[in-house]
Amino acid sequence: MPTKIILDCDPGHDDAIALLLAHGNPDIELVAVTTVMGNQTLEKVTRNALSVARVAGITGVPFAAGCPRPLVRTIETGATIHGESGLDGPMLPEPVLELDERHAVDLIIDTVMTAEPGTITLVPTGALTNIAMAARKEPRIVPRVKEVVLMGGGVATGNWSATAEFNIVIDPEAAHIVFNESWPVTMIGLNLTHQALATPEVAARIAAVDTAPARFVGELLEFFGHTYREVQGFDAPPVHDPCAVAFVIDPSIMTVQRVPIDVELSGSLTLGMTVADFRAPAPDDCTTQAAVDLDTSRFWDLIVDALERIGEPAV
Amino acid sequence: MPTKIILDCDPGHDDAIALLLAHGNPDIELVAVTTVMGNQTLEKVTRNALSVARVAGITGVPFAAGCPRPLVRTIETGATIHGESGLDGPMLPEPVLELDERHAVDLIIDTVMTAEPGTITLVPTGALTNIAMAARKEPRIVPRVKEVVLMGGGVATGNWSATAEFNIVIDPEAAHIVFNESWPVTMIGLNLTHQALATPEVAARIAAVDTAPARFVGELLEFFGHTYREVQGFDAPPVHDPCAVAFVIDPSIMTVQRVPIDVELSGSLTLGMTVADFRAPAPDDCTTQAAVDLDTSRFWDLIVDALERIGEPAV
Amino acid sequence: MPTKIILDCDPGHDDAIALLLAHGNPDIELVAVTTVMGNQTLEKVTRNALSVARVAGITGVPFAAGCPRPLVRTIETGATIHGESGLDGPMLPEPVLELDERHAVDLIIDTVMTAEPGTITLVPTGALTNIAMAARKEPRIVPRVKEVVLMGGGVATGNWSATAEFNIVIDPEAAHIVFNESWPVTMIGLNLTHQALATPEVAARIAAVDTAPARFVGELLEFFGHTYREVQGFDAPPVHDPCAVAFVIDPSIMTVQRVPIDVELSGSLTLGMTVADFRAPAPDDCTTQAAVDLDTSRFWDLIVDALERIGEPAV
Amino acid sequence: MPTKIILDCDPGHDDAIALLLAHGNPDIELVAVTTVMGNQTLEKVTRNALSVARVAGITGVPFAAGCPRPLVRTIETGATIHGESGLDGPMLPEPVLELDERHAVDLIIDTVMTAEPGTITLVPTGALTNIAMAARKEPRIVPRVKEVVLMGGGVATGNWSATAEFNIVIDPEAAHIVFNESWPVTMIGLNLTHQALATPEVAARIAAVDTAPARFVGELLEFFGHTYREVQGFDAPPVHDPCAVAFVIDPSIMTVQRVPIDVELSGSLTLGMTVADFRAPAPDDCTTQAAVDLDTSRFWDLIVDALERIGEPAV
Repeated sequence: MPTKIILDCDPGHDDAIALLLAHGNPDIELVAVTTVMGNQTLEKVTRNALSVARVAGITGVPFAAGCPRPLVRTIETGATIHGESGLDGPMLPEPVLELDERHAVDLIIDTVMTAEPGTITLVPTGALTNIAMAARKEPRIVPRVKEVVLMGGGVATGNWSATAEFNIVIDPEAAHIVFNESWPVTMIGLNLTHQALATPEVAARIAAVDTAPARFVGELLEFFGHTYREVQGFDAPPVHDPCAVAFVIDPSIMTVQRVPIDVELSGSLTLGMTVADFRAPAPDDCTTQAAVDLDTSRFWDLIVDALERIGEPAV
Repeated sequence: MPTKIILDCDPGHDDAIALLLAHGNPDIELVAVTTVMGNQTLEKVTRNALSVARVAGITGVPFAAGCPRPLVRTIETGATIHGESGLDGPMLPEPVLELDERHAVDLIIDTVMTAEPGTITLVPTGALTNIAMAARKEPRIVPRVKEVVLMGGGVATGNWSATAEFNIVIDPEAAHIVFNESWPVTMIGLNLTHQALATPEVAARIAAVDTAPARFVGELLEFFGHTYREVQGFDAPPVHDPCAVAFVIDPSIMTVQRVPIDVELSGSLTLGMTVADFRAPAPDDCTTQAAVDLDTSRFWDLIVDALERIGEPAV
Repeated sequence: MPTKIILDCDPGHDDAIALLLAHGNPDIELVAVTTVMGNQTLEKVTRNALSVARVAGITGVPFAAGCPRPLVRTIETGATIHGESGLDGPMLPEPVLELDERHAVDLIIDTVMTAEPGTITLVPTGALTNIAMAARKEPRIVPRVKEVVLMGGGVATGNWSATAEFNIVIDPEAAHIVFNESWPVTMIGLNLTHQALATPEVAARIAAVDTAPARFVGELLEFFGHTYREVQGFDAPPVHDPCAVAFVIDPSIMTVQRVPIDVELSGSLTLGMTVADFRAPAPDDCTTQAAVDLDTSRFWDLIVDALERIGEPAV
Repeated sequence: MPTKIILDCDPGHDDAIALLLAHGNPDIELVAVTTVMGNQTLEKVTRNALSVARVAGITGVPFAAGCPRPLVRTIETGATIHGESGLDGPMLPEPVLELDERHAVDLIIDTVMTAEPGTITLVPTGALTNIAMAARKEPRIVPRVKEVVLMGGGVATGNWSATAEFNIVIDPEAAHIVFNESWPVTMIGLNLTHQALATPEVAARIAAVDTAPARFVGELLEFFGHTYREVQGFDAPPVHDPCAVAFVIDPSIMTVQRVPIDVELSGSLTLGMTVADFRAPAPDDCTTQAAVDLDTSRFWDLIVDALERIGEPAV
């Protein structure tokens, strides 16, 4: 039986690919998509999510918009990486799906509270604002969620500062809430996602699928690769967010390590750092783990496979 | 026309009196009562609110429970002051009102969004968790709220630490959100409420009303006076929360000063301090003000008057 | 017998007047003058101290230069208030005194360690860097010092930020050290010194002394009054530093309150705040006190008297 | 020509071995030894340093005691690792050397100021209190020091907290000062020193030297190995401090990476973390570098060689 996930995202180039992967893979059932400000404003990333839904031919899944700004801090977007639209590069089709009328926080709560306990996996690939708000508004979701598999943070690495990753540092208080709740949390951080580089070989495999969605992904990677090269000095762009979906599909493509992880809220050099304590074996009540190594080749197989299954959507 | 208020409270002895004042005073229309953890757990303060409603004969007003814990921090209650029930002292009648099914955050949002813009005053007398969550979940309430008149913080004084007041320090991030939104905020802080002391003369005036609600208030003051004497060394207890309601009824009973106010989130001695900057005249875009002086005699007149109007409720 | 003091200063207009007061008053024996960066760079304030010594006719007192920058933070000077030279306004005579070869920190240590225990009062009127360094380098000075009477900080007021005073905030770690050592500390803060305003009446009394030093003070006050009016909106300038010397001369001209005082090191709004905890009577082991009220008229009498005693120095 | 070093240490088991290495190696000229509180109180580590001098037969080198406590924080010792004496395990001989009368801070300053510029290397293997105090008291030492090679901190690892190493975290402000001065700083951190494990093979090689100093080292390693096993779960103890001396002897036994390094002063999870920013190539003005890889076999060769050269001291 496929795993039911709520994808909470801010498309965003890699979010878009995560959405395609979640839609195209048969072991995932996408039960809701929620959006949160981050790579761009809420308005833009929400429109982007709906555009990607059209590209991918997603129907019958509720999409809802969530928080337009972080819990406590002022908003900071990732425009330097994702461009003015948040999804610069390809032409974005006009959305056809209508947004769900509920707030993302309520859609998350309703979905979890009405599903069988232990059946819903939360997959946040942006700031953790919606997830944190949901946990605070309705604490009973916490024991009902199967697990949280999030893209964010990292072990001993950062991108938005020397120690912090963008998704965490733009709303560190929300991240602090999510990592400190009692649900199982798997951190797919930069240490992992920097192994998922869209090299020319990868781009060639995707191009060979030769469908509209695959060409869309190709154009995303081209733009994303360009900004990553200019802004962060990468030869090939790390495709962060699909890694979280891939872990849900098949945990065996990564090695993970159980380790207590917390989020720094007050450092002047370390605000938003995900602090993992490797000094001793994780205690029995440790609910957090960090992804460490990626089987890169099987990861890209999943992406290509999803694109092949999606084919040419009718929408 | 009376002022419509949402009382967001954590009864709590002084919250209970605030509720009686709001109900008994003809210049206030109580449109909703919401509860938040603080003086005791959410469960206890919510039950207390409903019990007080029965004492006061409040009907036709939605009561909703809100957040059971602060946004980011762990919960800390005021049991040393308010006792195990949160309202120790008098016998608490079994509630007759049913709770509204909505979450307090949604009741606040719905109430503000469906009322005429500029007609709803928020009167928080506990931690600002519900108000902050509402502002983050639905930012459009901010320009629609008439003003926020809150009991919390203070100028150059503290009770839970040398610099911080209980309502603010138990959820400083929520307070930071509320003080930094664009709505007008009046801070009724400890510097003001420590002028509202329930002296024996005050107790005698209330006793003379000689109704069940007045006796209830008398018993509240007796318990509250006892813990304030033991824990904080006061001769007579300061009755904080009704001051916020009194300001809404008649702003002329206080002097206020426009001054930029912000909340400290990271100090080791000053966490949760409401920092008012008196160094220069408040800039034109300053939306915060601090209450400074109370006309004590008119304040107690309002309390006694409300009790007299309430009389012996039928419920 | 006069009280032996080490004046640790950063002249600075009010430091200069403090030096004149200490020199001219018969109840003070100035045993050393040490300088620290602050109102201007170390080089400038040291030269200023020597110039003022010439104006006042001070001889036979060792002057030593101390720390050119704060313990941990980068240097920030008070040029907006004290001008480019740190003592703008009057003509500054070429110094005639030679600097002591020792570092101020060593001069402080040597002076305290060679004097009878309990006979030396430290009077810092600038950043507390030298005093803190001395206490750390030679901890045995702490029980040998009679007391520390410092100008800095304040109760519920600030000038360099909403909550912090210049001398403390430019080296908060040093201040933290000084307030937390076991010696008695009297804080002459802004709440006190803002009572010592050099009004036109005061200026007239000083002008009437009609000596070179008095004219020098008159010119200092004119410049200082100008910048205080422009930068901080004062009608007449507060003459901070001589208040500390005045308290040593005659503690009865102030009321003081014993209260635990500590220095905030990590707040984003409150860095360098002197946090006094007035919630309960000071515990028996409290070694700090805050000056509260000034007998203004006796204070100015001391200033005028010192100028009259100094007369026209021969140097 | 041998490199002149000042060893600033807190013996401490690994400090003792560092002292033996510095003394026994012909490429090092030990020009001064200074002590600082840390592994134990100042009194204890100073006595230990003198005892080790006797074991090693060190004469003609000034030893001076320095700071008994950190700059700002209260003292915290490493007794759980180094025992009650700070050097538990072997019998400690009665010292024969007399302490220099100068304070360590002044001995450091005098040594640097009287030597040819660029000839003195500072090798701190404890808290950086003395070095920081010296830099603040006499800033002219900074450009005259050849370089600072310190044992402390680490890249992405900690021992006293998840993110911080003992030497740095017990006086983070001092470390902040040292890392931010303009002298070249090489950080020999835990990431490096955890490669220098005193395995049974290493112990056997040392035992084979079969002299009193070698037996002394053997007993140190036995005790140190025991506490490291019990407290931190190591199979064999990391011998931190000699790594710094070894780098001065022969930088080619390590790979290092130029990278900006700063010290976190305000984090709640990250206080005292040495934050290295690897996101981009180090800028041209970067003065810090981190040791990354150790040639373990050549490192132990240096230790054994030094012990062989020391032989049986006459003292």
